[in-house]
Amino acid sequence: MIRRRGTLFVVSAPSGAGKTTLCREVRMQLPDLAYSVSYTTRAPRPGEKDGTDFWFVTEEEFRGLLGAHEFAEWASVHGNLYGTRAVALEEALNGGSDVLLDIDTQGAAQLRARYPEAALIFIVAPSMADLERRLRERRSDNEQEIERRLRRAREEITLWRTYDYLIVNRDVKEAMAQLTAIITAERCRVLRLALKFPDLEVPS
Amino acid sequence: MIRRRGTLFVVSAPSGAGKTTLCREVRMQLPDLAYSVSYTTRAPRPGEKDGTDFWFVTEEEFRGLLGAHEFAEWASVHGNLYGTRAVALEEALNGGSDVLLDIDTQGAAQLRARYPEAALIFIVAPSMADLERRLRERRSDNEQEIERRLRRAREEITLWRTYDYLIVNRDVKEAMAQLTAIITAERCRVLRLALKFPDLEVPS
Repeated sequence: MIRRRGTLFVVSAPSGAGKTTLCREVRMQLPDLAYSVSYTTRAPRPGEKDGTDFWFVTEEEFRGLLGAHEFAEWASVHGNLYGTRAVALEEALNGGSDVLLDIDTQGAAQLRARYPEAALIFIVAPSMADLERRLRERRSDNEQEIERRLRRAREEITLWRTYDYLIVNRDVKEAMAQLTAIITAERCRVLRLALKFPDLEVPS
Repeated sequence: MIRRRGTLFVVSAPSGAGKTTLCREVRMQLPDLAYSVSYTTRAPRPGEKDGTDFWFVTEEEFRGLLGAHEFAEWASVHGNLYGTRAVALEEALNGGSDVLLDIDTQGAAQLRARYPEAALIFIVAPSMADLERRLRERRSDNEQEIERRLRRAREEITLWRTYDYLIVNRDVKEAMAQLTAIITAERCRVLRLALKFPDLEVPS
């Protein structure tokens, strides 16, 4: 029987939609939300810390974990590998924590299959022009990389209907309010409460 | 084809759960939310205004509207009749407005049948003792009336699982945040966006 099991929130977005900033903010505003640090084979960007932003591993280490079925989801993005370790995720959910995962569309589809009750949130920039501007402002990628990201974004955006919620990130403050509202509202859903507390009769 | 049709939010609660205060607050915080004024045969309480809090009508007038199928929902509560006029509700929803209805459990069940896509929210006091205290503090009812309301509350509370969302009103500020979060989150739901904007492709 499932008792006091946490809710899994999955946030995806094409690069440049502002997902990383929003997820960082929501972690500060909702500190009771558990956050699973992903594994990646990509090189750290300036300021990124091992164990905080990602677990940075070699491709050989990643393939070893993959072969041992250690990942709840994994994906290959722009030639780099990303994955979420199943054991850490299961521990948090079974302990009753709600977990926020910030992952790409391939990983989100795998999690939807594994956790049908997860809440999937998709964040988009208000337009492709805006997305391009944000990617260029980031200045961490070269022209070829930017064009690759834009191509991929165009493909990913078509997947929005496979998510539960859509946030159009016109303004960080508004998008932030929508993201926290979604988490708060999901916590009030009768279906979740009935699943989490099967014997609940209110008020006592 | 349904286009730009508004969402119907239905809020129910046993007397004394704080529903009236919460609905008044949410109307101030979300002024774009349309609010349908109910018809009732009960006498106005001190401070209540005709056309603002309710349309106060005689039982004969109410029965006339009922006979003409003018109500989207109606209910008999504590010997008084309450109803929501269908034409006003339809006009608001078809105009693309989201509508908040503050109605009892009988009316909510009728609206669920008529509008399966409505979002139903149930508000409860944290305990029966708390509910009783709130009803006594209101001082507008005599002992017999209070006991009748408590009996009815005990029955109504068992219906919480038929709603989409549950708010346990421990603290007005927290309950208020949950109610506005539910409305904000529902507006981000992909199912609603896909229904409201069938041709939507994001971003443009």
